[in-house]
Amino acid sequence: MSTIAFIGLGNMGGPMAANLVKAGHKVVGVDVTQAAIERHVAAGGVAGGSIAEAVAEADVVVTMLPSGREVNALYLGENGIVPKVKAGALLIDSSTIDVDTARAVAKVAAGKGLAMLDAPVSGGTGGATAGTLTFMCGGEDATFARAKPYLDAMGKTIVHAGGPGNGQAAKICNNMILGITMIATSEAFVLAEKLGLDAQQLFDIASKSSGQSWSLTTYCPVPGPVPTSPANRGYQPGFTAAMMLKDLKLAQDAARSAGAVTPMGAEAASLYGLYAAQGEAGTDFSGIVNFLRGR
Amino acid sequence: MSTIAFIGLGNMGGPMAANLVKAGHKVVGVDVTQAAIERHVAAGGVAGGSIAEAVAEADVVVTMLPSGREVNALYLGENGIVPKVKAGALLIDSSTIDVDTARAVAKVAAGKGLAMLDAPVSGGTGGATAGTLTFMCGGEDATFARAKPYLDAMGKTIVHAGGPGNGQAAKICNNMILGITMIATSEAFVLAEKLGLDAQQLFDIASKSSGQSWSLTTYCPVPGPVPTSPANRGYQPGFTAAMMLKDLKLAQDAARSAGAVTPMGAEAASLYGLYAAQGEAGTDFSGIVNFLRGR
Amino acid sequence: MSTIAFIGLGNMGGPMAANLVKAGHKVVGVDVTQAAIERHVAAGGVAGGSIAEAVAEADVVVTMLPSGREVNALYLGENGIVPKVKAGALLIDSSTIDVDTARAVAKVAAGKGLAMLDAPVSGGTGGATAGTLTFMCGGEDATFARAKPYLDAMGKTIVHAGGPGNGQAAKICNNMILGITMIATSEAFVLAEKLGLDAQQLFDIASKSSGQSWSLTTYCPVPGPVPTSPANRGYQPGFTAAMMLKDLKLAQDAARSAGAVTPMGAEAASLYGLYAAQGEAGTDFSGIVNFLRGR
Amino acid sequence: MSTIAFIGLGNMGGPMAANLVKAGHKVVGVDVTQAAIERHVAAGGVAGGSIAEAVAEADVVVTMLPSGREVNALYLGENGIVPKVKAGALLIDSSTIDVDTARAVAKVAAGKGLAMLDAPVSGGTGGATAGTLTFMCGGEDATFARAKPYLDAMGKTIVHAGGPGNGQAAKICNNMILGITMIATSEAFVLAEKLGLDAQQLFDIASKSSGQSWSLTTYCPVPGPVPTSPANRGYQPGFTAAMMLKDLKLAQDAARSAGAVTPMGAEAASLYGLYAAQGEAGTDFSGIVNFLRGR
Repeated sequence: MSTIAFIGLGNMGGPMAANLVKAGHKVVGVDVTQAAIERHVAAGGVAGGSIAEAVAEADVVVTMLPSGREVNALYLGENGIVPKVKAGALLIDSSTIDVDTARAVAKVAAGKGLAMLDAPVSGGTGGATAGTLTFMCGGEDATFARAKPYLDAMGKTIVHAGGPGNGQAAKICNNMILGITMIATSEAFVLAEKLGLDAQQLFDIASKSSGQSWSLTTYCPVPGPVPTSPANRGYQPGFTAAMMLKDLKLAQDAARSAGAVTPMGAEAASLYGLYAAQGEAGTDFSGIVNFLRGR
Repeated sequence: MSTIAFIGLGNMGGPMAANLVKAGHKVVGVDVTQAAIERHVAAGGVAGGSIAEAVAEADVVVTMLPSGREVNALYLGENGIVPKVKAGALLIDSSTIDVDTARAVAKVAAGKGLAMLDAPVSGGTGGATAGTLTFMCGGEDATFARAKPYLDAMGKTIVHAGGPGNGQAAKICNNMILGITMIATSEAFVLAEKLGLDAQQLFDIASKSSGQSWSLTTYCPVPGPVPTSPANRGYQPGFTAAMMLKDLKLAQDAARSAGAVTPMGAEAASLYGLYAAQGEAGTDFSGIVNFLRGR
Repeated sequence: MSTIAFIGLGNMGGPMAANLVKAGHKVVGVDVTQAAIERHVAAGGVAGGSIAEAVAEADVVVTMLPSGREVNALYLGENGIVPKVKAGALLIDSSTIDVDTARAVAKVAAGKGLAMLDAPVSGGTGGATAGTLTFMCGGEDATFARAKPYLDAMGKTIVHAGGPGNGQAAKICNNMILGITMIATSEAFVLAEKLGLDAQQLFDIASKSSGQSWSLTTYCPVPGPVPTSPANRGYQPGFTAAMMLKDLKLAQDAARSAGAVTPMGAEAASLYGLYAAQGEAGTDFSGIVNFLRGR
Repeated sequence: MSTIAFIGLGNMGGPMAANLVKAGHKVVGVDVTQAAIERHVAAGGVAGGSIAEAVAEADVVVTMLPSGREVNALYLGENGIVPKVKAGALLIDSSTIDVDTARAVAKVAAGKGLAMLDAPVSGGTGGATAGTLTFMCGGEDATFARAKPYLDAMGKTIVHAGGPGNGQAAKICNNMILGITMIATSEAFVLAEKLGLDAQQLFDIASKSSGQSWSLTTYCPVPGPVPTSPANRGYQPGFTAAMMLKDLKLAQDAARSAGAVTPMGAEAASLYGLYAAQGEAGTDFSGIVNFLRGR
């Protein structure tokens, strides 16, 4: 049993912290909103005060924050995690942020002798609650080994993708393919409709052919062929268009920074940007099929 | 055993006709080049003269032509298939052409009491030779039932996609997804490289995650993860970029004609157009990863 | 004074025919709708019956039709213009259609000794009424010379762009630039807004700099800088998004047919397709700025 | 006469500093390369040592640096401009950088009572040498008024675009339009060629029509119509593709940060990225017409 400081108890962080409590750890929770801390306590956690207080006694610090800006500020600010944590603590950042910030913060941490792992997740709030998240991790082998038992309490698939930043890199590359492929599949269903080709027919053919993808066979954007997909429940998320757009923008940031040319990734970011601009950011990301279809 | 007139004995038609010969049919072959006819005869076929002569006694006519222009001309021209074929003959067009022409020709044929099936294929020259092609068929139920034994001699997966034109529609929707997804997957590998994420790592993660697609797990565009993919043999086709571009342009034609908006499909056609314009049209279509990567 | 058969008396053709009447010609008008013919008669024209009747005595035939399909049918059909017109008549097609059809029809006409000019227009209904249209013409020098007096009655700028089809080519190239540039300019205004840069400031700077274009300085898509632009009257057309989309699709058809790679042109067609799919096809094409801006 | 510290004496900064010398000012030059400082001295300037030394006695500091990273470091670092400059000095940053950094640095400077202007330029090395640059400025009115005499020594068009950061915003919006429009115009010339429409014809028509833009009428990407454009001298820059790509990426950063959707801007960045990836980054940006045309 360890003492874990968990910072960021939102839609994802809340259930993740609860699973660490269930695994028998003492979890000190910190969040900007009091209601989140209260839910954490109700789930068996301990209410934390400031970050500096919470990390002072922690063996492990886990963070789940909105972007690189918060990660940079909360880890490196004057009263932040790196200055205030005790020596030898393990730092795990499960936020989805830009690769450059992840590497920069890990470098500062390493300079202070602190082991840090970027471990962004996929699997959504459902996976967070069920403890079946996928973690894509970047950091030293020894750091990964130390972190694994804690990640096992929150997830099902734990992957070591390489050195610091490689967790973010793996997630962002995977999600760039996802955004593009969901749009491609949606375009195909709209084209099929207008050509008089039945959706189930297209599904049956493409799912066994070279048009197959996870977007089609696990998350079909039209109702019917995959009864569990959000298309069958009015495109209630799932995984919102806002979240997909965030990841697609991070991919474009990474591409610009690393000098990679990603035309399809850029186009996907533009299309999800337009879809969100119509007021649909809160729908499931597969709802883009409706935007393409129009009225 | 039937008498089959097979028109178009090229890279695909030649081996397809040979499989019909192996199945015990009398196959009268017609082609613009004498060498193709000689190969057909060497494989046990019969040399045909003109189209009019070849179809006069045929129970079944199979065509494998480059585009809608040839299909329109050879089926509907004065001495073409429809005017010259005997009553009750079965017409099977396995060319990959635009949906509008496929439907127009089938309509004229139906007006003359002739059953016609559009049955474009996938599986490439390898599938043609091995008799393992996939046929995506459009036409009446009875027509499909009549055609099936002949298609079974040439292919492994025979799908009825709906009425006339739906075979072309199914193929073009599937292949639009394919072109987009191959580019998406290629972009992800280039981005991963420049971010310091190993290709095998990305493959391992995405193939079990929401970034999975046939393009990744069956036809990986970088050497290593899928040893049978063309990336492992210098991008020798396979399926050429020229063929992929042809299909992407047909999808755009279909979208424009049917009033569907397909931004990713259009972008894929542009990118394969640029790739081909660099002189790479004869490479495998997965070679686009090299174009994206640059020098 | 000549006898002119004018086929297609819609929003553009009606006023164009009226200007030919004002120039002193006998103009026999044909249209599918009786109301259009009645307006033509009220403007001093003569009511025509069938195409065959109308062209039988015509020195000149002018057509203004929706697409290549109508042009092909009305010129080449059994009772159409080419079979029924008198020898030596001059044929002027001012429809905006695909280059291939324009050239094919002109070729058939030439084979029958008939001079034909493709002469698509720009300037909208305002230019049609005011007689200030721009005509972009394709055909032989002698044909252009014969046609010029008639075009002068309807337009202000009459350009000879080359051989048959070059009128359509010139219009479609120009309008492809226009569609792209209007979107580019709109994106810049939305970006400026969100960066806190005043629209008038951006206009003042770009209009004197390398960002200048007709879309900016003649047809500014935001209200204020160019008081005469449709942005200043609620985006009432002008030139509808539907018409812009039609031209952008024709450009893509031409690119596809001629083997040119036009990625920006394809993207513009996609974006106007999405804008129209939201139900905005009847607004002025500069209204796309609102679509980009979202809610 | 003022004492000016000029930091960054490269292709642009060198000639700009020389013009300030010609205007009678004492210009202390700082650069990472000794050769640049020697050229500055040869032009009548004074060799500076460290930044801290150079700015200590300066009335005005002018910077011309590659990116926001350098601007942030050199202005805000421990021995940088803001800590070391004398009270009341005027700061002018003529680098082209991201809007966010420009505003952040200006805010820190303002907090220390220092007036700062972002004043990025256009006009290239030719304009720098000739003293005919365009400056697009952001900052307080009083700051702009103080800076104007110095900018007048280096440029011809000096524009005040609004508050801090608005100079960068204006430049980036203008240059986003420029990149898109150059590609659009290039696509039109390639399409025209393949349709048999002469380049001069297209130029004559579009330049007087709705397809007109600065890219066409001042910087035509094909040789002939505008004899002074780089197309007429083998696409020697001019303005390199690398520089155009830099600006297009900055526009995408700005859009992403400000929440604007810019699909055409993103596409232009992708296409110039692909062009540069072929090894053509050092050619004039109008050379993209050759990339689109292919072999």
